[in-house]
Amino acid sequence: MCERKCKGCDYSADFREVHEECGVFGITTGGDESIDVREEVRYALYALQHRGQESCGISVNDKGVIYTHKGVGLVPEVLTDEAISKLPKGTMAIGHNRYGTKRTADVMNARPLYIRHAKGTLSLAFNGQLVNAVEIRRQLRETGIIFHTSSDAEVIAYTIAKERLGCDSVEEAVKRTMEKLKGAISMVVMSPRKLIAARDSHGVRPMCIGKLKNGGFVFASETCALEVVGAEFVRDVRPGEIVYVEDNELKVYRRGKDRPDGLCIFEYVYFARPDSVIEGQSVHHSRKIAGALAAKYEPKVRADVVIGSPDSGLEAAMGYAEESGIPYGVGLIKNRYIGRTFIQPTQAERENAVKIKLNAVSETVRGKRVILVDDSIVRGTTSKRVVKILREAGAKEVHMRVASPLYVSKCYFGTDNTEKKDLIAGRLDLEGIRKELDLDSVAFLPLEQMVKVTPDAPNCGFCLGCFTGKYPMDVSKADETDKYSEKLGN
Amino acid sequence: MCERKCKGCDYSADFREVHEECGVFGITTGGDESIDVREEVRYALYALQHRGQESCGISVNDKGVIYTHKGVGLVPEVLTDEAISKLPKGTMAIGHNRYGTKRTADVMNARPLYIRHAKGTLSLAFNGQLVNAVEIRRQLRETGIIFHTSSDAEVIAYTIAKERLGCDSVEEAVKRTMEKLKGAISMVVMSPRKLIAARDSHGVRPMCIGKLKNGGFVFASETCALEVVGAEFVRDVRPGEIVYVEDNELKVYRRGKDRPDGLCIFEYVYFARPDSVIEGQSVHHSRKIAGALAAKYEPKVRADVVIGSPDSGLEAAMGYAEESGIPYGVGLIKNRYIGRTFIQPTQAERENAVKIKLNAVSETVRGKRVILVDDSIVRGTTSKRVVKILREAGAKEVHMRVASPLYVSKCYFGTDNTEKKDLIAGRLDLEGIRKELDLDSVAFLPLEQMVKVTPDAPNCGFCLGCFTGKYPMDVSKADETDKYSEKLGN
Amino acid sequence: MCERKCKGCDYSADFREVHEECGVFGITTGGDESIDVREEVRYALYALQHRGQESCGISVNDKGVIYTHKGVGLVPEVLTDEAISKLPKGTMAIGHNRYGTKRTADVMNARPLYIRHAKGTLSLAFNGQLVNAVEIRRQLRETGIIFHTSSDAEVIAYTIAKERLGCDSVEEAVKRTMEKLKGAISMVVMSPRKLIAARDSHGVRPMCIGKLKNGGFVFASETCALEVVGAEFVRDVRPGEIVYVEDNELKVYRRGKDRPDGLCIFEYVYFARPDSVIEGQSVHHSRKIAGALAAKYEPKVRADVVIGSPDSGLEAAMGYAEESGIPYGVGLIKNRYIGRTFIQPTQAERENAVKIKLNAVSETVRGKRVILVDDSIVRGTTSKRVVKILREAGAKEVHMRVASPLYVSKCYFGTDNTEKKDLIAGRLDLEGIRKELDLDSVAFLPLEQMVKVTPDAPNCGFCLGCFTGKYPMDVSKADETDKYSEKLGN
Amino acid sequence: MCERKCKGCDYSADFREVHEECGVFGITTGGDESIDVREEVRYALYALQHRGQESCGISVNDKGVIYTHKGVGLVPEVLTDEAISKLPKGTMAIGHNRYGTKRTADVMNARPLYIRHAKGTLSLAFNGQLVNAVEIRRQLRETGIIFHTSSDAEVIAYTIAKERLGCDSVEEAVKRTMEKLKGAISMVVMSPRKLIAARDSHGVRPMCIGKLKNGGFVFASETCALEVVGAEFVRDVRPGEIVYVEDNELKVYRRGKDRPDGLCIFEYVYFARPDSVIEGQSVHHSRKIAGALAAKYEPKVRADVVIGSPDSGLEAAMGYAEESGIPYGVGLIKNRYIGRTFIQPTQAERENAVKIKLNAVSETVRGKRVILVDDSIVRGTTSKRVVKILREAGAKEVHMRVASPLYVSKCYFGTDNTEKKDLIAGRLDLEGIRKELDLDSVAFLPLEQMVKVTPDAPNCGFCLGCFTGKYPMDVSKADETDKYSEKLGN
Repeated sequence: MCERKCKGCDYSADFREVHEECGVFGITTGGDESIDVREEVRYALYALQHRGQESCGISVNDKGVIYTHKGVGLVPEVLTDEAISKLPKGTMAIGHNRYGTKRTADVMNARPLYIRHAKGTLSLAFNGQLVNAVEIRRQLRETGIIFHTSSDAEVIAYTIAKERLGCDSVEEAVKRTMEKLKGAISMVVMSPRKLIAARDSHGVRPMCIGKLKNGGFVFASETCALEVVGAEFVRDVRPGEIVYVEDNELKVYRRGKDRPDGLCIFEYVYFARPDSVIEGQSVHHSRKIAGALAAKYEPKVRADVVIGSPDSGLEAAMGYAEESGIPYGVGLIKNRYIGRTFIQPTQAERENAVKIKLNAVSETVRGKRVILVDDSIVRGTTSKRVVKILREAGAKEVHMRVASPLYVSKCYFGTDNTEKKDLIAGRLDLEGIRKELDLDSVAFLPLEQMVKVTPDAPNCGFCLGCFTGKYPMDVSKADETDKYSEKLGN
Repeated sequence: MCERKCKGCDYSADFREVHEECGVFGITTGGDESIDVREEVRYALYALQHRGQESCGISVNDKGVIYTHKGVGLVPEVLTDEAISKLPKGTMAIGHNRYGTKRTADVMNARPLYIRHAKGTLSLAFNGQLVNAVEIRRQLRETGIIFHTSSDAEVIAYTIAKERLGCDSVEEAVKRTMEKLKGAISMVVMSPRKLIAARDSHGVRPMCIGKLKNGGFVFASETCALEVVGAEFVRDVRPGEIVYVEDNELKVYRRGKDRPDGLCIFEYVYFARPDSVIEGQSVHHSRKIAGALAAKYEPKVRADVVIGSPDSGLEAAMGYAEESGIPYGVGLIKNRYIGRTFIQPTQAERENAVKIKLNAVSETVRGKRVILVDDSIVRGTTSKRVVKILREAGAKEVHMRVASPLYVSKCYFGTDNTEKKDLIAGRLDLEGIRKELDLDSVAFLPLEQMVKVTPDAPNCGFCLGCFTGKYPMDVSKADETDKYSEKLGN
Repeated sequence: MCERKCKGCDYSADFREVHEECGVFGITTGGDESIDVREEVRYALYALQHRGQESCGISVNDKGVIYTHKGVGLVPEVLTDEAISKLPKGTMAIGHNRYGTKRTADVMNARPLYIRHAKGTLSLAFNGQLVNAVEIRRQLRETGIIFHTSSDAEVIAYTIAKERLGCDSVEEAVKRTMEKLKGAISMVVMSPRKLIAARDSHGVRPMCIGKLKNGGFVFASETCALEVVGAEFVRDVRPGEIVYVEDNELKVYRRGKDRPDGLCIFEYVYFARPDSVIEGQSVHHSRKIAGALAAKYEPKVRADVVIGSPDSGLEAAMGYAEESGIPYGVGLIKNRYIGRTFIQPTQAERENAVKIKLNAVSETVRGKRVILVDDSIVRGTTSKRVVKILREAGAKEVHMRVASPLYVSKCYFGTDNTEKKDLIAGRLDLEGIRKELDLDSVAFLPLEQMVKVTPDAPNCGFCLGCFTGKYPMDVSKADETDKYSEKLGN
Repeated sequence: MCERKCKGCDYSADFREVHEECGVFGITTGGDESIDVREEVRYALYALQHRGQESCGISVNDKGVIYTHKGVGLVPEVLTDEAISKLPKGTMAIGHNRYGTKRTADVMNARPLYIRHAKGTLSLAFNGQLVNAVEIRRQLRETGIIFHTSSDAEVIAYTIAKERLGCDSVEEAVKRTMEKLKGAISMVVMSPRKLIAARDSHGVRPMCIGKLKNGGFVFASETCALEVVGAEFVRDVRPGEIVYVEDNELKVYRRGKDRPDGLCIFEYVYFARPDSVIEGQSVHHSRKIAGALAAKYEPKVRADVVIGSPDSGLEAAMGYAEESGIPYGVGLIKNRYIGRTFIQPTQAERENAVKIKLNAVSETVRGKRVILVDDSIVRGTTSKRVVKILREAGAKEVHMRVASPLYVSKCYFGTDNTEKKDLIAGRLDLEGIRKELDLDSVAFLPLEQMVKVTPDAPNCGFCLGCFTGKYPMDVSKADETDKYSEKLGN
């Protein structure tokens, strides 16, 4: 499903930024002076790099004063030794990796977002997407609040600041903000004295709590960031929970629900790192299960080899192979050096371009009936090329098995910002998909099977909106036209 | 006086940014499609580069939508061909060169400042410094307005946005803003349909109007920017005036006073480019006059040669030589390749470092009684080194003549941010200065002569605050502690 | 075995550069004007990037004039659009990826090496390592030849130039050169009119021939580079063969042997890309076979899961799992964003550093008896860390199985430049290795099995020197002290 | 005359590089451990930056081993702190600034040139141009010597290496080389134990000797580099002299002539820094004298003001004004921020482009009869634009006075590489020049006056070839076609 990650650099203007699937992280030393929070944030953001490669940043809290550094680029490009050395050592910090669309790759959209409000300062790192941003922004703006961008992060930060005017603590302001805002929200807020984590009541995006040896605490989007900073997993932040660290103590300000009722299933399917555990469920294992489940369903075919689409389809392919008894093979090799600095071919349509990224292992597929497993299909463009490569390498038959259902509806919570008309399953039926991708057969995981891929998260409820068009909350206002997008004259 | 321009790169946090001496520019095509406003802004900012080398930026208005690009660095580093090509061609644009202290060299402080307010959007390029920023910010913040930095530009932009709520046009909002804000203000504001220029009622900082051949208009900090874009000089923006371009017409919204009563004399002494004309007075000529006037006053000395301190003291030295009849000589050569990328010596105190920047022409000074003319002395550190170089090159006597009075008081309007305790004339008397700089004699231009350097601006009144401690407006609140600088907990 | 690829940047001086394992490529258009050789070289070098990440370059031949561009960095960093556009389009070109030690990461060592000799010009791209370089250089230098570096490439190019003096063609000069030089040599030479490929008589390093649709030819280190340029595989260059393209025709100047007798087995074990085919043998399949063979040998253990060390041990692990019947699992996840720009931790010894690169999938290994398969162990440092990570993730037992024999002797042909004293198998016995790596058991593939991993290259003979200390040619002079390394006074 | 310094970046191929006007420097510590030769070379190259801005480099000698770092760019771009820190501290070093044409801006042409020859190693920094390079190269190449570029530096280094084979010391080899090579040669050669300086017998290019306080010695192209490293001027290297430092002692190997008979007069006119002293003559003073002499000659005109063309014409203008009694004025201001990073306008012919670089001071020239003084005119393109700017600024008359004779012949010694057909004085007569430049009158310094500008170098003879077509040596073979430029097939 890597087709979604097209990069680029462009200039923001007056359009709505619809996408904030990101990685967030926060840390307090707990008084342990051997811990350099700047380094730890850097390690953690490195581990969370898969959640956002557009821009990144850090805010360090040194005795109540917050210093921020951010920029467009990968973690090693932005958080260089030189940049890190100019920040104070500090005792608290937050970090953020942003994954935006190419139109928003601008430093103005990099996070954390640091603001100075009436009662102090705060820095915010946010993962998710609001569904009532337009409305809330309209309200804020009518009270005279000024916006620099059209990002959800500004809406959230300003709401906290506004609520803070009428209450006694920043955690209370965060609570009130969470009540006002609708959408997927997993965020870390750092005030001069506190580090706060909050997660929406449906638990759409993940967020977990870790503990350092000598008393410090950590909040992170995924557990894979805990290990790199030497933190022990404590638990997931609960849906609707507001939790914060003050004076080296972890305090629950508002207790949330025990289990999400709208956790994004796509975190397991594609987004999260395989070595992470979300709500008790290993991401890696859920992918293998999805592959195995896919193998149980029609249409069954005789095949010689099962291969996966690198990297995200490999685990499902292994599960499929184990379940079906058809041998697993390595049929496609991805160029390890493909990266964001790769030069686009001058003839963009050039077929060799995709060959640079992906090559077939002829010995695996030549003359074979191949089952190609992928985790999902969104637009279908990459899948089409992969099938072509396999056929050119001599595959006799290519049967595609997708370890998730037909992706038919738009996501409003940050997974992907493809409009319905660009979704292959939104515009074609199964036979249409088969033809477009030039397959011998194609099958998707039935919806009722999708929910079985998380046996270790037994009571967890999921958002399956992209497969069903039914969302855990009202999204009717999410597509509202923002008056900011109108060209207001005066 | 080049000692003031120490560069560097640091991180902004919770301190007040006290300095915004900058270059601003605005342009409208007047419907002439052959004009590319992006290119013109680039040329203009290049011509105004001397007013700020820290960061720069551009906002282009394409059919009411404003696109902004900015960054830390010189014009050719930030406004690259690639960056320019990503902006739309547009029909209106503003640009800004920022000169800040090293603590504020951050992209967050780069300008123009683009905001989205309740009634639309605007982009602001500002030159000057407020004296009631702390108070206004406090008021704004009490109404819930949120700040990202502690810059004056934010205070101005948010005040415009706030005033815009209660009035019918952006020019009216600018007018109200100018009434609320105290300080040196020369600015260009671009709304979706209008380009507005405003200057404070004292006329502290310069600003002029130019006209393009086919109907377009230009606003610029200095006339030297008109020529590079092919614009003809129309007139200076009047003190207190608010003027704007709408539908290809130049309209005066509020007529200002005929002449400034507080124009910064330092624009002539040091800051402006010699080929600029401010309020009818050629900057170059005012410097020659200042040198000539210096030659008329005590203590007169017998000398063999008059030399200037490059680059800003050269013209005064010529004036001095002409008036005194003592031959003008080139006694000091500046390395033409000194720039911001220059590597600081590892031993900072190293004497060779200054030799890299400046060398004496031995033939001019060896065995001679030298009169060294400079435009001004602020801290005195560079002057001290220059005298040392001259003595090492064999000068028999070194007499320093400064073409401006003793610089004894802090500037509140953006010329320089040196505190009184660091001003050599603030801590030493004349004899003390002579000894510290190792001079045979030293003299400064008497205050009453300073005002004579602008014969072509006959009715113009000046701010002489740095020489007198008396300012054209109340500065008592300028040094007020900003509550933003307190570490507010909660 | 990724431990070997430590990068860095340093300055070359008077030491011998012992290592030139590289990727080489050459192409002629065959008169097809739709082919842009600059683009094709870029694609090919991208596909061969795994053979060298230190520096790269291209020489383009435009009507007999050779233009070269090269630099330190990865292909997309050096062969940028801008760089490419400054070269002529040309009808012939060669390219080179260099993998050197960190001491030699200098542009002076980047290739191709372009020289102007007595009878013309040539450009050289070389993969391999000489064993009589010191001697040949001494001879050359005694005739007055001057060297700029201590690289083997200079020795080769100068020998060709010298031989060219006494013969009638460049292909003859190459032939004579191949007779003089001893070592692993796979190279492409471009003269004003010809493109020549040569391979040493033992066939130590691979090299193959491809054909473009409209008559052009291609030479490449590996077949994976053929596909990206749309070339069809013709055959491997034979050991001892000298083949060239002239006037769009492929001509064999000297016929080589049918099969190598000293092909580096490590090309299959680690170095080549899995989707390449060398001497008829798929690299991917040879790795699976090696894993399967490892599974057949003692000590057999009861285990719950077989995992591979990413990326190079994964295929052997699959082969092991299939053969043993023990389930294959994904036990380790490599951070996809690790690259050469990665910031080294300030505390180099820091344990978190390795965690950034590699994380365990706890679900796969917790409480399990794990068989960890890797392709090879050289120094053992990475393996040690991997075992630690697995144990921390809860593995009950860790048994390591290596799909190649004990690596006990130094390589003289470019695979790796580790000295014997730094090889873990050079200094410890099996039990010592087990203890040092903290394993429950460890086993290596028996030597007699190693040669069975290439069933599709039946008559091929291999260099197994790193496992046996016996090499296909005399290496006694390879370690000779170069008089160039002596500090000659005068 | 700044038109000559057009920059750019291109790729070298098979053409002759005709130009090596450069800055060279060498230093030995004399055992003073407080001296860091790396830093001193950096300072010196900074002072010599005006002699070459294309590329630069350093070779450091640490106990007989020579380490080199070089690159394309200005001194602060190439000799960064990081680059410097990777070199050893050393006790001897040489440095080089290269000024080449844009076609040769390639790291392969950067210097010093380090080679390993039969009897050791050496590094070479060269300033000048050979007139028998083609012949010598042919001879070398016929003995099998291989060239990487077509630069003169390679010819020199290889000749030294070749001669070294048959003699006992490197200084003897340098002597023999100087006898073989014809042309302008000022160079520094560093061997493992010695630092050697040599200058051709005509003394075309300058070179001087300085002494450090504690016994170290310095060789430099100009005296301005002595001061920045704290060295005292000892004397010029004599024409034909070979001098070297060994064991902290300065030794003369071959005594040269007392005075040059072919010193390039253009060093005084334009090339050298004004604060340098060459053969006893201050460069600055010679320029003032040239201006004064120009004022004495016909056609005399009535004028209101004398202005100079920045920067190189300013001093002559001062001399002219003093002599003529017509007031000196600043009529043109050069943008201080113009540099190599300047963005070329997309419409290259655009007139605003030159306005960015140069603005007229209207007050100085409006309604005035202006005498514009420049040091020289080569192509005439810049002069033409300057006159246009002056006329647009309102100058009533513009009379140009050039402080050197008509530049009619090609230079073969490195001053400039303009072909005769492109010299304005090569293709037009005086009246033609006047018309082309749109002047009211134009005059050049008579040839017999030119030689009077160096009163403090009384017995010095000059090369006036560019004015006379007569050169101090035979240049008939300088334009010979290099067989290297032929496309040799084989």
